[in-house]
Amino acid sequence: MTRKAAIIGGGVIGGGWAARFLLNGWDVAVFDPDPQAERKIGEVLANARAALPALSDVPMPAEGRLSFAGTITEAVEGAQYIQESVSERLELKHRVFAQIQQVAPGVLIGSSTSGFKPSQLQENAADPGNIFVAHPFNPVYLLPLAEVVPSPANPPQAIEQAKEILREIGMFPLHIRKEIDAHIADRFLEAVWREALWLVKDGIATTEEIDEAIRMGFGLRWGQMGLFETYRVAGGEAGMKHFMAQFGPCLQWPWTKLTDVPEFNDELVDLIAGQSDAQSGAYTIRELERIRDSNLIGFMRALKDRNWGAGRVLREHDERRRAAFHDGEATGAPLVMAQMQVLSGWIDYNGHMTESRYLFAASETSDAFLRLIGSDMDYVASGFSYYTAESHIMHLGEAKLGDRLTGTLQVLAADEKRLHIFIRIMKGEEAVATIEQMLLHVDMKAGRTVAAGPHVLDRLIPIARAHQALPRPEAAGRFTGQRKG
Amino acid sequence: MTRKAAIIGGGVIGGGWAARFLLNGWDVAVFDPDPQAERKIGEVLANARAALPALSDVPMPAEGRLSFAGTITEAVEGAQYIQESVSERLELKHRVFAQIQQVAPGVLIGSSTSGFKPSQLQENAADPGNIFVAHPFNPVYLLPLAEVVPSPANPPQAIEQAKEILREIGMFPLHIRKEIDAHIADRFLEAVWREALWLVKDGIATTEEIDEAIRMGFGLRWGQMGLFETYRVAGGEAGMKHFMAQFGPCLQWPWTKLTDVPEFNDELVDLIAGQSDAQSGAYTIRELERIRDSNLIGFMRALKDRNWGAGRVLREHDERRRAAFHDGEATGAPLVMAQMQVLSGWIDYNGHMTESRYLFAASETSDAFLRLIGSDMDYVASGFSYYTAESHIMHLGEAKLGDRLTGTLQVLAADEKRLHIFIRIMKGEEAVATIEQMLLHVDMKAGRTVAAGPHVLDRLIPIARAHQALPRPEAAGRFTGQRKG
Repeated sequence: MTRKAAIIGGGVIGGGWAARFLLNGWDVAVFDPDPQAERKIGEVLANARAALPALSDVPMPAEGRLSFAGTITEAVEGAQYIQESVSERLELKHRVFAQIQQVAPGVLIGSSTSGFKPSQLQENAADPGNIFVAHPFNPVYLLPLAEVVPSPANPPQAIEQAKEILREIGMFPLHIRKEIDAHIADRFLEAVWREALWLVKDGIATTEEIDEAIRMGFGLRWGQMGLFETYRVAGGEAGMKHFMAQFGPCLQWPWTKLTDVPEFNDELVDLIAGQSDAQSGAYTIRELERIRDSNLIGFMRALKDRNWGAGRVLREHDERRRAAFHDGEATGAPLVMAQMQVLSGWIDYNGHMTESRYLFAASETSDAFLRLIGSDMDYVASGFSYYTAESHIMHLGEAKLGDRLTGTLQVLAADEKRLHIFIRIMKGEEAVATIEQMLLHVDMKAGRTVAAGPHVLDRLIPIARAHQALPRPEAAGRFTGQRKG
Repeated sequence: MTRKAAIIGGGVIGGGWAARFLLNGWDVAVFDPDPQAERKIGEVLANARAALPALSDVPMPAEGRLSFAGTITEAVEGAQYIQESVSERLELKHRVFAQIQQVAPGVLIGSSTSGFKPSQLQENAADPGNIFVAHPFNPVYLLPLAEVVPSPANPPQAIEQAKEILREIGMFPLHIRKEIDAHIADRFLEAVWREALWLVKDGIATTEEIDEAIRMGFGLRWGQMGLFETYRVAGGEAGMKHFMAQFGPCLQWPWTKLTDVPEFNDELVDLIAGQSDAQSGAYTIRELERIRDSNLIGFMRALKDRNWGAGRVLREHDERRRAAFHDGEATGAPLVMAQMQVLSGWIDYNGHMTESRYLFAASETSDAFLRLIGSDMDYVASGFSYYTAESHIMHLGEAKLGDRLTGTLQVLAADEKRLHIFIRIMKGEEAVATIEQMLLHVDMKAGRTVAAGPHVLDRLIPIARAHQALPRPEAAGRFTGQRKG
C-alpha cells in the first residue's frame, strides 16, 4: 500500500523533501499557507524529476500523488511520516508540533531545523519522543545527507524507524549522538561563511575568487573523502599523528586571530550581493539550479562507478529496489530488461545522445539479462562469463537530454556456447536504435570458449525457445552499408 | 626546446610539482637532502602517471627528463622556473632563496608556502621581485588550484609570466591581489579544522562522522560552485540579498561562541589518530591515494563534460595542446586520430574495458576526423552534420585499466552524402577492436540527407582517394554472427 508523508512548510527545503518522497513512491500532502507554495513546489519537483532518476539504475517506482492541504490537520491525516520545514522560529515550530500531535499522535516528526536542538523542539510537546531533527541539505532531492539528531527523550526504536524511512527514500541518515546547536555540518558552513565575510569585507578577495579558491582545490577533495581522511592521505606513510604534529601548530599561527564575527550591516550585504551579481548574474537562478544538479549528478555517478561515499548510498538504494524488478521472464515477448534516462554527459555537440551511449544502453540491457539467467557477479568470480564478440548497431531515431529509454531483449538463438541476441532501445513506442550481438561463453582463465554452466542453460534455453515464436527482426543479419529492402 | 624546472624540496608537494612539470613535457631537476627523496618522488610520480593523462583528450607531450641534483646550484642551473617546497621555516626559506639567487638571478621562484606572505619571503633577498607565492593543493598533479600571491615588490609582468607557466602545466592560477597570512583557501581549511577539533574533543562526533557530514552534503556542492554561488542558488528567485537577510543573523547564534582555539595536546592527537585508524585503517595510504585520485578524476571528468569549473580548465588545457596534433593527413596510411587512457569508470565487472567504451573510443576517433575535414562545431552550428547510420563492432582483444589506446581511421568510401569508415582501436600494435561505420551527411533542420559543403568535400575526397590504395580490412562488410573465413 502506498504510504503518505506530510510536508509542513513548502519552501525550497520542504519542496525538496516532497520531491524525494514522491519520486520514491510515497503520496505527499503539503501544508503551507503561502499562496505561492504550489507554484514553488512545482518548480522544485520539475527539477527533481529531471535529476533524481538520473542516479538510478533500476526503474523508479510509480510517482506518488501530490496534494495541497488547507490545514495541518488535513495534511497529516493518515501520514506515516511528517517533516517540518517552517521558518527558524522556535515558537512557530512549537505551535506546529502542538497542532500535529493533537490529531496525529504517535507519528514521527522530523524537523529540518538548522539551528535548534531536539530538546528545544520538544519543550512542552504532548509527545516529545516522536519529535527529532532530520536536517537535510539543498538540493534535498539529490544530496544524501540528513543529520538525524535525537535528544534523550527519543526512544531509540523511534530513531531507528526514522533512519529506515530516510534510507528508503535514498538518504544517508547521519546519527548524531549528542545534540548541539547547529548539529555538525552547519558549524563548518558557519565557520567558512564567517571567514569569507571577513575576506570580502577586508577587500582581500571577491566572492568569485573565494569560490574559485574552493572549487578548484579542496572542494573537489571534500566531495569524496571529507576532512580527516583527506589529511590522513596527505600525512603519507607517517600517518595521522605525523600530520597533526606538522600542521597542529598552525592553530597558533597569526590567522587564528580572525575568529571575531564581522559586523553584519547593509554595507556588507551590498558589497557581497554586488560581487555575486558580477560573478553569477549571467545565469538565472533556474539555469544555475540545472547546472548545479547536472554537476552533482556527474559527481555522484562518478562515485557510484567506484562504489564510494555518496555513490555507495546510491548503489545500496538500487539494491533495495532491484528485488521489485524482473518478472515474467519466459513469456513469448521481448524482455524489458533496463530503464535509463539520458543524462547531460551523454549528449554530443549535435544535442543528441552520443552514439556510444546506445551501446551503453544495450550493455545495461544485456547485463540485466545475463544476471537474470544466472551469469552474475558470483558467476564471473567463479571464472566464467559471456563476452561480446561482435555487435551491429542501427541508428533509427534520436534520443535527447532527459528522455526515458527502455531496453528490450530478444534471443535470436542460443546454444551451449553461443548467445545471439537482438536489443531494441525504445523511447516510448519508438525504437531509436537496435543492436544485434553475438556473445560467447568463456572460461576466463583458460581464455577459450566453453559450454555455460547447467544452471545458466536451464534458465536460458526456455527463454530462447519461447522467443522462437517472435518475428525475426528485419535488421538481423544486416551488414554495415547494406542497401535497404 | 625542452624547458627545465627546478624543484627545491621533494616531499609530497614538491613531488607533485615535479610530476606536473614532467608530464607536461618539462625537464625537472630536484634538490632535497633527504636520502629518501628519490623513492618518495618516484611514488608520487607513479601516481601522477596513472592519473593525470586520464584527464586529457589530446596526446600528452613526451615526458621530460627527471634528475636529482646534489646541490641547489646544480638543480637551478639552466632552469626557466624554480618552485620551492621546503619546510615552513622562514629562515630556511630565506637561506634557500639566497643560494638560488646567487647563481640564478632573474629566474622566477614560486614558493609553496601555506602561511607566509610574499613580503616575508622577500625580506633581504638579492632580487625580491622574482620571489612570490604559488601555493598548490594536494594532489598537486591533479587539482588545478595554485594561489598566486605577489607583494608590491613583484613587477606585474613577472607575475603574469608565472601565471602563464602555471597555465601551461594545466593549473588554474588564482591571483590574490592583497597578501595576507595563509592566503585564502587555507583560512577556510583552518576554520573548519578548528571547528572539527572541538567536535572531536567534546565527543560530539568522530572523525568518520565528520567526514560523512562533509562528503554526503556540502562537500559535493563545493566541488562545483564553491560557497557564494551555492548560496545564491539557495536564495532562489529572491536573490543573494534575501539569502543574506535570512541567514546573516545566524552569525549571532549561539554556535559562534566556538571561536576559541582548542588546546593542542597529546590527548587530542591520540583521540583523533585513534578515530582515524578506526575510520580508514582498512586501507593503506597508497590505496587511499589511488581511491582519491580515481574519485577526483571522476569529478573532474564530469565537470569537463559540462565545461564547468575545474572541467573548463581541463578543456582549455587541451585546446592549448591540440594545435600540436593532426599532421600528415592525406598520406596513404590510416590516420591516427585519437589517444585515450582506460579510466576506472570504463571497466566492467569482468575487469575489462566495457563494450560501449570501444564505441566511445571510435567516436573520439571519428569526431577528430570530422573536425579535421571541417565538419566541426561551427559547421554543426550552421545546421549540418554527419550522423552515424550504423556500426559493426568486432571485439578482438581486451583493454584493461590504465591501458593507452590509439584510434586510427581508414576511409573505405566517400561520396557527397555518404562516408564509409573503418576504425581500429589499437593497444600498441594490437587491434583490440575494429568498428566499421556508415555516416550520412544531413541537413539537421530539414531532417534529410544532403551533399556536404564544398570545403568539407575538398578535404575529404583527397583523403578518401589516398586511402583507396590501402588494403580493404577483412572485417569490412561482415554481419553479426557470420562464420569466419
